[in-house]
This record gives sequence, C-alpha cells and structure tokens, in this order.
Amino acid sequence: MKTDELYALLRRRGVLWPTAEIYGGAQGLYDYGPLGAALKRRVEEAWAAWFVGLSHDYYLIDPAEILPEAVVRASGHLENFTDPEVVCEQCHTAFRAETVLEKVRPEGVDGLSTAQIAEIVRDRQVRCPNCGSLALTVPEPFHLMFGMEFGVTGKERVYLRPETAQSSYLAFSRMWDVGRRALPLGIAVIGKAYRNEIAPRQVLFRMRAFTQAELQIFFDPANFPLPFDRVREEKLPVLRVPRREAGEETPTWETAGDLVATGQLPEFYVYHLVHTFRFFRDVLRYPPDRIRLFEKSDAERAFYNRIQFDVEVRLDSLGSYKELGAVHYRGDYDLSRHGEGSGKSLAVTLQSGTKLTPHVLELTFGVDRNVWGVADTLLTVDGERTVWKLPPYLAPVPVGVFPLMPKEHSGFARALADELASSGVRVAYDDAGTIGKRYARMDEAGAPYCITVDGKTLEEGPEKATVTLRDRDSKAQERVRASELVARIRPTLEPPRPSRA
Amino acid sequence: MKTDELYALLRRRGVLWPTAEIYGGAQGLYDYGPLGAALKRRVEEAWAAWFVGLSHDYYLIDPAEILPEAVVRASGHLENFTDPEVVCEQCHTAFRAETVLEKVRPEGVDGLSTAQIAEIVRDRQVRCPNCGSLALTVPEPFHLMFGMEFGVTGKERVYLRPETAQSSYLAFSRMWDVGRRALPLGIAVIGKAYRNEIAPRQVLFRMRAFTQAELQIFFDPANFPLPFDRVREEKLPVLRVPRREAGEETPTWETAGDLVATGQLPEFYVYHLVHTFRFFRDVLRYPPDRIRLFEKSDAERAFYNRIQFDVEVRLDSLGSYKELGAVHYRGDYDLSRHGEGSGKSLAVTLQSGTKLTPHVLELTFGVDRNVWGVADTLLTVDGERTVWKLPPYLAPVPVGVFPLMPKEHSGFARALADELASSGVRVAYDDAGTIGKRYARMDEAGAPYCITVDGKTLEEGPEKATVTLRDRDSKAQERVRASELVARIRPTLEPPRPSRA
Repeated sequence: MKTDELYALLRRRGVLWPTAEIYGGAQGLYDYGPLGAALKRRVEEAWAAWFVGLSHDYYLIDPAEILPEAVVRASGHLENFTDPEVVCEQCHTAFRAETVLEKVRPEGVDGLSTAQIAEIVRDRQVRCPNCGSLALTVPEPFHLMFGMEFGVTGKERVYLRPETAQSSYLAFSRMWDVGRRALPLGIAVIGKAYRNEIAPRQVLFRMRAFTQAELQIFFDPANFPLPFDRVREEKLPVLRVPRREAGEETPTWETAGDLVATGQLPEFYVYHLVHTFRFFRDVLRYPPDRIRLFEKSDAERAFYNRIQFDVEVRLDSLGSYKELGAVHYRGDYDLSRHGEGSGKSLAVTLQSGTKLTPHVLELTFGVDRNVWGVADTLLTVDGERTVWKLPPYLAPVPVGVFPLMPKEHSGFARALADELASSGVRVAYDDAGTIGKRYARMDEAGAPYCITVDGKTLEEGPEKATVTLRDRDSKAQERVRASELVARIRPTLEPPRPSRA
Repeated sequence: MKTDELYALLRRRGVLWPTAEIYGGAQGLYDYGPLGAALKRRVEEAWAAWFVGLSHDYYLIDPAEILPEAVVRASGHLENFTDPEVVCEQCHTAFRAETVLEKVRPEGVDGLSTAQIAEIVRDRQVRCPNCGSLALTVPEPFHLMFGMEFGVTGKERVYLRPETAQSSYLAFSRMWDVGRRALPLGIAVIGKAYRNEIAPRQVLFRMRAFTQAELQIFFDPANFPLPFDRVREEKLPVLRVPRREAGEETPTWETAGDLVATGQLPEFYVYHLVHTFRFFRDVLRYPPDRIRLFEKSDAERAFYNRIQFDVEVRLDSLGSYKELGAVHYRGDYDLSRHGEGSGKSLAVTLQSGTKLTPHVLELTFGVDRNVWGVADTLLTVDGERTVWKLPPYLAPVPVGVFPLMPKEHSGFARALADELASSGVRVAYDDAGTIGKRYARMDEAGAPYCITVDGKTLEEGPEKATVTLRDRDSKAQERVRASELVARIRPTLEPPRPSRA
C-alpha cells in the first residue's frame, strides 16, 4: 500500500485521524482513535519492558513537557534548533531546504551551511517543488521550537521540549541522590516532544507533536561492565560510512565481535546496538532483511554525537528506508552543558573515588513512526481478507468473544468476556453479523484469538465447558476448556524481555 | 502530615520533584520520578478499567494536546477562560481574586463579576496576603490558556488544550462514523491539559501542566437505558445546595433512589454518581467518611452545566475537602457549539429516526490530585515505620524479591524475579542490607508483598521450592510454593471493574 492508501485504511478503521478534523485539521497533528491509542500504548509498553528491562538500575520517569528558557539555552536548542527554510516567492509555499534539494542531492543537507545550500539552488537551477518556478528565496534558519509566555509577568518564557532527552538530563541529579549513587544509571522517558516543522508530511513521520521513547544511560566510559561475550557472535545488518560513501544502499552482516575488533567501536556501544536490533527484529517483528543500521558520518552527526547509527526499516508505504530509532553516544556533552547552565556541577564521585561527569548513551525510538511501521509491515491484504499480523502483546484487543447465536449463547459469552477482562486479558465482545464477518473484523483489528461460545459449550455444563479457539494466522480452530483460556492466553500478552546484563 | 512535610517525603523518595530542579524549578510544573510515574500510570489504568469498563460502547482515545484557535473560539475558552487577577502594587505579587478574598469570603468568587469583587476588596479593606498592604489593584481578567504561533507564516495561532474534554468533542463525529452509529457512545481521554495559573500552589493541586482523565458520554436524554434498580439502595454522602446555603459542611447519606424520587435528579445522572462514588471508595480506597458529593449552585456552575456534583475528599495535608473529580451534565452545549464553529452539524440520526444533537455527561478526574490524595490518605507513619498502604493494583512495584543471604541465594532469587516479571508481575530485586531494612524500603514504596529466598528454598529442590511471602499490612509471613506465586499474586494486580450496565 502507498502512503495515502494505508492512511485511508487507518482513518476508516478509526486508528488515527487529523486533530480537529471537523475544523479541517491542523497540519502535523493527529489523534489516535481506540485501536490506535491501544496499539500505541502496547508499543510503548513493549519498548519499556525491553529497554528499561536491560538493567535493574534503569528507571522510567514521567517529567513535564514544558522547559524554562535557561534549559534550552544551555542545551543549545535556543541558538541552534533550526532548519534551513526556502520559500517560493511565486506560490508562497515554505519548504525545508532538504525537500527542495531532494532530487539533486538525495543524501540530504546535514552539515551544509545556508550559503552552501543557496549556491546549490542557484547553480543547479532548482525549481519550486510545488509550482515549478525558479523564484526560491535564499535559505534562512527557521526556529523549530514552540515558545510561549509563562506566568503572569509577561517576561518569563518557556518552550515545549524539542526532545524528551532534555528531561532525563535534568532529572539526573535528583535520581543520583535518591538512588544507589552508582553508575551506570539509566533514565527512560516516554512522552511528547514538539517541533514546529516547516513542512509536516508522511503522516506519522514528520509531525509537530510526537511521542518519543528514550533511554539515557549515564555511565563511566572507563568502566561499563557488560556481558559482551553473550552477544559477540550476533550478526548485525550494518551500513558503515565507507560503503555508504561508495554509493552502497544495502547493509552487510557483520558480527558484534568484528565491529569491536576490526570496526573500532567500543563494546558498550555495540552491546546496545545488538539489543536495539533484537528489539526491532524480535519484539516489533520487522523482517530482518528490511532493517539496516545506518552509520552517520562526521558531517551528518551533531558535533556532540561521537557515534551514531540510525535504525532504519524499509517501508513499502513510504518507498524507502526510514529512521525508526537510533543509538547515540553523546560523551559528557549534555551533563557538562547543564552543569554550566544551571551553575550546579553534575559531576559525581564514584565509590572508587573517581570524580567524573558521566557520559551518555542514548537509545532513542519514535513511537508514532513505529505505529506506522507495524501497520506497513504487518497489515496485509490477501484478496478479500485484511489481516493485521500483530504479535499478541501488541494487539490493541487480542481476544474476540462471540456467542454463536446471540439469543442463546450471550449469557455465557458475556460472563466469559468479563472473566477474561478481570484477569487482565483485553477482550472485544461481538454478537453482530455472521461469525465470518466477526472473524474478519477481528483479523483487521489485529486480534490473534477469537473465542466462540456455542450449543456444545452450554451442554457441557459450567465446569467442563469448552469453546472454539480460532487462531488468526493459521485459521485453525480447536476446542479448549473455557477454564483454561486465561492460563493459555495471558502469558502471550506479556512483551518479551531481554536477557539481563 | 502537612503539605510541606508530605511533599518533602515524596521528593526525598523520588516520587516527584520540581521540573528543571537544578535550574531552580518552574512554578506549577513537576516531574514524576520512578515511583511517582508508576503510581500515576496505575491510577490511570484503574480509572480506565473502571470508567471505560462501564459499557462495551465506551472507548479510550489518545488525541493531540494542541488545538487550533477556531476550536477554542467555538468552545468559548478564547473569550471566557480567565481568572480575576489582583496585583499588589506594594510587593508586586499577583493573586487570584479568590485567594485574596479567602478569609472574608471562604465560599469563593464563582459567579461574581470583577466589579463585585472590587467592591468587596474596597469595602472590607482587604489586605495583600503577602505583604499586608492595602495597595491591591482592581481585579482584571487574566487569560489562562497557553497560546503560541504555529506553522511558518506567523499568522496561525494554536493553544495547549485547557481541558481534555475538547478533544472528545472533536472526535465525536469520526467516532460516530467508525462505530455502531448508536447512543450512548462514550469517549475517554487520559492526557495533559494546561493552564497558565496565576498562582500555582499546593503542589499537585494547582499545576500549570496537569493530567486529566475524562469520560464524555454522548447520549439521548429521552432514552438512556440503565439498570438503575441495581444502584437504587446505594447510599451516597451528598451535600446539597440548600444545606450548603444553611452553612453545613458535612454530607448526609441519601439513597440513589431518594435522590431521584424526591431530589429531582435524573436517573442517568445518579446512576453515574453512584459509580463515581464507588470508584473513589472501593478502587482508590478513600475512607468513605472523608468523601462528600458537593453540589454546585446555579451561580457556581458554568452556565452550560445543568447539574454538577464535585467529588471532594478531606485531606489532612491540605487541611480541607478538596475536589478530586466531578460529574457534569452539560446538555447539548458542546456539540452545538462545535457544530456552529466548524460549520459541520454534529446532530445525528438514530435508528428510530429521531434526529438530535447528543447530550453530554462528563465524568472528570484529576490524576495528579489523586496521586497526592492516595499519598495523603494511605501513606502512614507509625513510629519508625512508614507504610504506604496502596492496594496491590496501585502499587508502583507490588513485589520485592530478596535473597536472604546475597552470596548463597541470589541465583534462585534473581531467576524468580525474572520469572515473575515475565508473567506481568512488576518486581524489585533487593539484596542490600538486612531483611528488616529491605522490608522497610518496600513498605515505604507501597509494595504489598515481599518474597524471601533462603536456605530451605534451595534444599527443597526446584520443583518443590518454597519461599517466605510476607504481607505488608499484617506483617504475617507464610511459606508458599514458588511455583504458585504467579497464580496467587497476579490476579490481585488487576484493578477492579464495575458490574456492567
């Protein structure tokens, strides 16, 4: 499916739609409906189970999305958080410079100055992507943060956070004080971030309000003990800078051990790259041959990022590899900046007596993009049958409960649905239309299990009653004791956890 | 505990702290740490299980927090969402008029014009609450919405939503189209709302960014079938307007049936008031003698609210009854306004052929306030022992797992902790200090269960191994088969659900 087709299907099913749709929508803002909200929550829970689950010393917090100006001044966002903007003087459309140069410079504009971009626009006679005219302005930096007045004086200014990471840095000091006072210490945030994008597009890919999940691991680079041997033989689909610069697009499979031994990456970095890759492959179930770990070059990385691989997945709906997550090694940049900005040193003294400003390894993940990603890769249309092959722990509602004949079987079916719900199994009760239609609705909504209560169920009596359990993917049906359903289904609803470090 | 004491304890335990604390904080903004974030999430889940669980036709959605200007113009917020502000010309402090008049007019200023407030300030010679001077300005309306520029033109203006309810109204049309096209239809939102409060105070009670949970039930007032007989005999602690106006503060217990028969309230309203009361009493476990259902008078209610009872709980930390939730009957005001504002009628045609603009019953709930509420009422200090008596389904981490002797018993204990986690039981593994200290830490964090692995466990062999299970409230200890822990604990972690309508 193309972008528009997939978006139309998701809108029709109430997965998502434009914010304030009855008012014509608001560019770059979307509302999640019942299925979308539940799926998004499941993706967040799966992320937390996996990444916060990497260590007993990693914690999920829930900080406010509004930041005082001093914070974004120290982080550098106030000065630098801009995108080069080009406006067409003919049709008055505003574009990101990257979009205008898409055809003549597909590798993007990261690292180019606005003067260099202007030169390319002029020399290559680049035309407006909308009206085709040559009347494009010289690029100017456009600020991407949403700022607003705060308090009653009219003098205080605050910003919606441009990334959740800032909230973790701010929390470090308090978390150090209330915790074990030891490194590594992990602080995870799942929450909104906001950017006044010049040109929102591709639905959930360039939004103005979006949900990030990020784990910031604060650590001592001289001492980060990890069971690297457990991942040494794991093969990763990497696309490193030299091959990229030679024009290659497809990754090569290299072992974690080789990336360290001959690829000159630190063990702590590769260890987390392995766990990140496993999350995309084993938990979100992206096909491994669609994933690549895309190394960013010196010019492309922010200067404070020492190592950066983006996790990219090839999505049919968008026609290319898209960034769905990343692993950033940021050194001590963040805590040093906030130490200076706040006037409160964020250096810590370890039990060994060593004093240091902790380094940060950032595992970042775009929640909305991955909701789209699992729609792109797992929502399949097979003739008349639309099936969303979500694993049970990602299914918005994993179980459908149907009375075969509503009049006769609804009492038992409703009681069963309530019993499952009380055991933490999310169910949809459906008694409308033929069983085939009810299966079809649950298939499209991604439910792996359908349970039908029929005449036999009632005949068997409450203790020995059996029901039909139908599997979405194989379409196989079997009789199962009603009393055994919870024990059978409940464990499959827990997202996988990593083997602990 | 007084406000400051309770806040200090919560801050020390990493439950919450001021946003950007290292920069001196930001007034009215707080970050939740690990315990607070988990407790808040549990409160939200308990709310959703109960209120969305009221009907198969109620749904939870997740809409954006930013609203276009046209939306808040139609809702009336652009024009009317203000608080009367009084400034002291001596010390330059800004106050809500309500605060300035607290002593001379404890019933508040709802329904008074700014001219009337000015008169009281003058006639009663009201002094500045901060410096005591008489130099208070005439009250002026202060706008409470956060507004900001949106997009690249500099002309588009958007607002952070002042209440989650607006998102439900905007979603109604799409939800009607993708659903059964029948009433009642319930749309629930749990999310952030924002108000530029003149004077944030009382920590989580008057914040500038706060979390609401609201269920909007769209219904036909002529036909809202409900099993009222099931709640008819339930007694509710109500404080109605006539008794209030006679100066009474304490509620009287009246049956749901009487409130309908002689109290002239509609059945659909009282039915939901009962379920709301049950939630506060049975799920959040507020002592029933601390709860009152506080009826608002015509002057106090917004003009579109036809009936309003606030759910108030008497909190020791704040020295008074505080509003923690409410039930509003809003008529067809909201959908009518947005029908006019958007130019798209939100009237619907029912299967019966009736055409109507649905009425709204709003069940609203302050998430942060209730996090504070269950700290106030369930966090007890008994000599040296601090115990947070949260029910299991609200506990941030309900289970502690300890090896009696770390060196000998940690293998089994860690494996057990991982097994519990894989079955959806949140655990904290703790091997530091004496067992008594570990119990104390879990008591203070609200964990109802502690499990200790000891020598006997290992002797018994993997299949028959038993562990000590210790109950927080009774301090009783018993030996339990390790293999039976999940079956015993897991069901208690599900929040209660209402009996379905």
